[in-house]
Amino acid sequence: MEPIMTKAAAAEQVVTARIRTGRTWQELAEKVGAPLVWTTAALLGRHPMRAAQAAAVCDLLGLGDDVAEALQVQPYRTRDEAALTDPTIYRFTEALTVYGPAIKELIHEEFGDGIMSAINFTVDVSRRPDPDGDRVVVTFDGKFLDYRW
Amino acid sequence: MEPIMTKAAAAEQVVTARIRTGRTWQELAEKVGAPLVWTTAALLGRHPMRAAQAAAVCDLLGLGDDVAEALQVQPYRTRDEAALTDPTIYRFTEALTVYGPAIKELIHEEFGDGIMSAINFTVDVSRRPDPDGDRVVVTFDGKFLDYRW
Amino acid sequence: MEPIMTKAAAAEQVVTARIRTGRTWQELAEKVGAPLVWTTAALLGRHPMRAAQAAAVCDLLGLGDDVAEALQVQPYRTRDEAALTDPTIYRFTEALTVYGPAIKELIHEEFGDGIMSAINFTVDVSRRPDPDGDRVVVTFDGKFLDYRW
Amino acid sequence: MEPIMTKAAAAEQVVTARIRTGRTWQELAEKVGAPLVWTTAALLGRHPMRAAQAAAVCDLLGLGDDVAEALQVQPYRTRDEAALTDPTIYRFTEALTVYGPAIKELIHEEFGDGIMSAINFTVDVSRRPDPDGDRVVVTFDGKFLDYRW
Amino acid sequence: MEPIMTKAAAAEQVVTARIRTGRTWQELAEKVGAPLVWTTAALLGRHPMRAAQAAAVCDLLGLGDDVAEALQVQPYRTRDEAALTDPTIYRFTEALTVYGPAIKELIHEEFGDGIMSAINFTVDVSRRPDPDGDRVVVTFDGKFLDYRW
Amino acid sequence: MEPIMTKAAAAEQVVTARIRTGRTWQELAEKVGAPLVWTTAALLGRHPMRAAQAAAVCDLLGLGDDVAEALQVQPYRTRDEAALTDPTIYRFTEALTVYGPAIKELIHEEFGDGIMSAINFTVDVSRRPDPDGDRVVVTFDGKFLDYRW
Amino acid sequence: MEPIMTKAAAAEQVVTARIRTGRTWQELAEKVGAPLVWTTAALLGRHPMRAAQAAAVCDLLGLGDDVAEALQVQPYRTRDEAALTDPTIYRFTEALTVYGPAIKELIHEEFGDGIMSAINFTVDVSRRPDPDGDRVVVTFDGKFLDYRW
Amino acid sequence: MEPIMTKAAAAEQVVTARIRTGRTWQELAEKVGAPLVWTTAALLGRHPMRAAQAAAVCDLLGLGDDVAEALQVQPYRTRDEAALTDPTIYRFTEALTVYGPAIKELIHEEFGDGIMSAINFTVDVSRRPDPDGDRVVVTFDGKFLDYRW
Amino acid sequence: MEPIMTKAAAAEQVVTARIRTGRTWQELAEKVGAPLVWTTAALLGRHPMRAAQAAAVCDLLGLGDDVAEALQVQPYRTRDEAALTDPTIYRFTEALTVYGPAIKELIHEEFGDGIMSAINFTVDVSRRPDPDGDRVVVTFDGKFLDYRW
Amino acid sequence: MEPIMTKAAAAEQVVTARIRTGRTWQELAEKVGAPLVWTTAALLGRHPMRAAQAAAVCDLLGLGDDVAEALQVQPYRTRDEAALTDPTIYRFTEALTVYGPAIKELIHEEFGDGIMSAINFTVDVSRRPDPDGDRVVVTFDGKFLDYRW
Repeated sequence: MEPIMTKAAAAEQVVTARIRTGRTWQELAEKVGAPLVWTTAALLGRHPMRAAQAAAVCDLLGLGDDVAEALQVQPYRTRDEAALTDPTIYRFTEALTVYGPAIKELIHEEFGDGIMSAINFTVDVSRRPDPDGDRVVVTFDGKFLDYRW
Repeated sequence: MEPIMTKAAAAEQVVTARIRTGRTWQELAEKVGAPLVWTTAALLGRHPMRAAQAAAVCDLLGLGDDVAEALQVQPYRTRDEAALTDPTIYRFTEALTVYGPAIKELIHEEFGDGIMSAINFTVDVSRRPDPDGDRVVVTFDGKFLDYRW
Repeated sequence: MEPIMTKAAAAEQVVTARIRTGRTWQELAEKVGAPLVWTTAALLGRHPMRAAQAAAVCDLLGLGDDVAEALQVQPYRTRDEAALTDPTIYRFTEALTVYGPAIKELIHEEFGDGIMSAINFTVDVSRRPDPDGDRVVVTFDGKFLDYRW
Repeated sequence: MEPIMTKAAAAEQVVTARIRTGRTWQELAEKVGAPLVWTTAALLGRHPMRAAQAAAVCDLLGLGDDVAEALQVQPYRTRDEAALTDPTIYRFTEALTVYGPAIKELIHEEFGDGIMSAINFTVDVSRRPDPDGDRVVVTFDGKFLDYRW
Repeated sequence: MEPIMTKAAAAEQVVTARIRTGRTWQELAEKVGAPLVWTTAALLGRHPMRAAQAAAVCDLLGLGDDVAEALQVQPYRTRDEAALTDPTIYRFTEALTVYGPAIKELIHEEFGDGIMSAINFTVDVSRRPDPDGDRVVVTFDGKFLDYRW
Repeated sequence: MEPIMTKAAAAEQVVTARIRTGRTWQELAEKVGAPLVWTTAALLGRHPMRAAQAAAVCDLLGLGDDVAEALQVQPYRTRDEAALTDPTIYRFTEALTVYGPAIKELIHEEFGDGIMSAINFTVDVSRRPDPDGDRVVVTFDGKFLDYRW
Repeated sequence: MEPIMTKAAAAEQVVTARIRTGRTWQELAEKVGAPLVWTTAALLGRHPMRAAQAAAVCDLLGLGDDVAEALQVQPYRTRDEAALTDPTIYRFTEALTVYGPAIKELIHEEFGDGIMSAINFTVDVSRRPDPDGDRVVVTFDGKFLDYRW
Repeated sequence: MEPIMTKAAAAEQVVTARIRTGRTWQELAEKVGAPLVWTTAALLGRHPMRAAQAAAVCDLLGLGDDVAEALQVQPYRTRDEAALTDPTIYRFTEALTVYGPAIKELIHEEFGDGIMSAINFTVDVSRRPDPDGDRVVVTFDGKFLDYRW
Repeated sequence: MEPIMTKAAAAEQVVTARIRTGRTWQELAEKVGAPLVWTTAALLGRHPMRAAQAAAVCDLLGLGDDVAEALQVQPYRTRDEAALTDPTIYRFTEALTVYGPAIKELIHEEFGDGIMSAINFTVDVSRRPDPDGDRVVVTFDGKFLDYRW
Repeated sequence: MEPIMTKAAAAEQVVTARIRTGRTWQELAEKVGAPLVWTTAALLGRHPMRAAQAAAVCDLLGLGDDVAEALQVQPYRTRDEAALTDPTIYRFTEALTVYGPAIKELIHEEFGDGIMSAINFTVDVSRRPDPDGDRVVVTFDGKFLDYRW
């Protein structure tokens, strides 16, 4: 039996078709009807899509049912150490290195003992115009969870 | 010659005095006259303080000149792998694991080839009320830098 | 000679067929006549199956003898560091990080010097309804083994 | 200023006094009025105690205010790789190596895409008599959290 | 030119044929006329075989000359970290973790400064009946080599 | 309160006194009334001793009650990666690298799916005279445990 | 859909064609109309090329549109630990090991707290004749960025 | 016998005295009569100084003979992985990640098979004014060494 | 375009042909007209060969132009951690572990501050007859390079 | 009881006294009456000395009985990864990276399947005059050991 296409192969199909058709991630998100970061992450293999979402994307990009099937599979969200060394991604890791303990202190001061959820959680990426050079603004927004027995 | 107190020892002094005097990080930041996350990070040893800033904090907390001297030293901002496993900090690392490639794609789509600076950069931590449980909102805001020869 | 299909390839066949036929792991376990976690682990390649068990599963899922042969092979049960970073699995690792030393103290207090066997051992996964949100309950149940010369 | 005793040093004090006074972890938990695993973990430095809880333990064990102060401090819950190689703790890691993917499949089958919380979470350690040798039963019980935007 | 089959591929051929023909490792060792552990290790790629030994095995198992050629190649005996995490193998590593320093002390007490050779060396695996459960007995037997200038 | 001496410090005391008094490990084992490898490992901190055993050793070596107290503490048996690179210990690791998979195959052939216990387990170190140079013989002897649900 | 050729495969095509046609990197850079190090890095997959640049190179080397397409893709610039051990590259790492802290001190003395940008940044490689043996001169030239809130 | 002060402790003395006396590295280099980067590296422990050089620095900074003795000791120049994660130093590592293979290609094209020496080698750090922001210019200058039998 | 054969594939071709034709490394070195260790290393992919050298070897072994082309390519000489665990190679690493600091002290005593070059460098492997067993003699011979600014 | 001085502390004493008295390693070796590399390694803690050897060195250097006692202790010869990155030592590691597989091939060609012993083994360091710059010659000389059952 032909195994289900891997989510990595499906992502490669999406990326190829996106470039060749000239679609933006924003257009794909609108077609899917979901937030921009969520849609991008899902198409790169980090969230399972519902059948209608997968079909909409594959229709827009001219991709087959095998891709649509793969996009619906429950993913493993494993760490890719090499990817974390890409400079665009590394700067976020560096920010955690420099500011992680301060963020921890301030979460505990404001909320008590607990964490920001990374599951009940959204991310937003936007541009903020600035005369000294526009800025990348990335917002992490997660429910506070307190240690509770 | 008595060596300058390490920044780790100075941070331990600040944390001890802060707890015993009941001061909040917010109060320390106001005394210093600097942003909250910046001040917290600086007092934990991640930014050098100006002499007046260091003196103000030590005055408020009843700490000596040795602490004030240490707070002004240029830091090493090295990674502490153990600290990154603390659950409160780890959730940010996990978010990068899940969303890092999507953030990279969207930065490139919006800005072209380059990165969000982690140097010309600010961080903000705040609470957003929500009926399903208040939320931790952490904003990373850095100047876009394009690869430029 | 065509080598025996790897257990990873056999698991990929099982997962593909399970999704396409809409079978649940519970149905597969009933067909096999074995506990749910055991059956799932075995089909993912972590336990050897008896011939009749392998045949029953392959019959239900429409898979060939090559899959059935592979399911009976003695496995290597090696660690997959990447899989341990998947958030669903990572939370268990984090729990060990936080509670491991406490669990160790309590085992020694109750039983003396020794360990919980991971071989004479069962695992159970279940749902516990709760008005504040249902709960995942995972039970590790292993024979106590004392250090004995 | 004398820095606050580290939580590791406080744990060493508790362990020393517990052995010399012959107290069990169960007795300490009853004195604190909290669950057994929680109390043990807190005294080993993994949860902050409330002032009254810390005072009760120190009173029972004849320990000073410096220990009580340290027990109330917000902890770092960082991973200790060496501790994870202790055989009593390692068996749990091995169980995750063998059964982690199966547990992940069954959580997703029963609950959908999400995780067992390790924060809104309890652990229990108990003995189950068995004619072939009594068994260690460790139960992880955490709220299900679904990926939710 | 068709490269020589790798020793890993040859081992896969041997394992496949051994299972399909129902031969035991003991039978293969007898056919080869060499010790059991040596033969098993050699067929898994860890020792080069003489031409007659390789031919005898391939004849018994119905394997071709390409396998026989590969079995004679001088091997790399490199460490496979993943294999060392398999529970059956890991217990030996754990035993070294617990008893390694004691074994070192006793070798030095008995023999002086030096080592047990792992080259002029044999291994034996056997079963020892025991009313409380039969036992695995593994014997390492190596020539003592003293540091000698 | 003076914390209990660490087991590492107690071992250092035992080793110092053993060398200065000229005692052998064998004499210590006889005094303790326990097997040689077990006693050596226990005195190096890898097993807890009973009170009478600890007292006997400290009496023989002229060590104080603080050492005797430490010898009775339940140990962490954590891995020491550096120690494993000592040539005398490394040869055992190398033997596992070369013969581990063969040992695994033969355990499964003889006993079925399971492991040699490292808990219900003994080790013996002895000398075997040989005209080509005496040999170090190390025997690992552990109860077979089968995977059993 | 045939996926876009990977940048690694495109680099392999460029390297193959460069060797077979006898072109130098300098000639390729002139054809592209960009600096030498930039062009070499881009052709090895570390910078995206504009369409005209990619076409010019592929025309010169007789490579197809699939290579030209791949050269325009936005790269991951991930670390390749193995490559860093090549002696020609390793000497630079060693220089950072020996001189990194000194360079850091001098940047801070001259510029204050901040970094040399690796994005707004150029590299030059040249030969400097010297009677004792010609010298390799590599210049890193990046905009100073100060930590700025 | 009081052991020679470690080079790390001597560097700590130099750094303390340099800050308290307000001397620049440039002034120290002039006093020593050696290049700026060399002097800074030597005072941080990476090169042995001649007796007169060490005496000159200690005289200028008011440090004792114990420091002067330590500055003359032959160093270990070992890698400090944590230091390499400091952002000011990390940017150089990142540059090697991005440009290392290109630098290697160009060295081989210009010089043939060999390396830039890191021993017969100098480093220079300077400022280059630029209307868009001044630039850090770091020059690595090493003798070419060809592989030669 | 068919990419140039990798040096690993070329080495596999050489090794295959060498075994099937019964040639020794010594014969290949004589054919090439270069030292034995150099030739062996080059054929295994660690040095580029000149065209005539590559042609001579391929002629002797009956290999094609594709192999000869690959043997001339400039190599990456990257570390292969697994290969370093092979016992035959590991003994050299162990010797460095035991004697590395002593060798360093003696180089500095004899030559001053600097290193043995690994580039202007030769290696020789030979047999030295000895009545107690013949000996492997490996000589490393490299130009001394002193740290020189 | 005062524990035996560690071998690291004893080495620090020897190094301090050697520098202050101006003795060379060669003079120490002559006093000890043992080979130069052996003596240096032993004084740095890698071989146990006999009582007379230790006494001779301590007498020459004016060191106490505590040092002499420590020099006689059986060492752990553990790997020090940081030391291996020192450039003077690293070049040997690099040579193994480049030539290790060639050395392995040639040992097997000359001697058959086996290794060079690192125990029945000597090392020599010498200077070889050369008009193009004197050379460091390091000879490893170990008994060949064949795999022998």
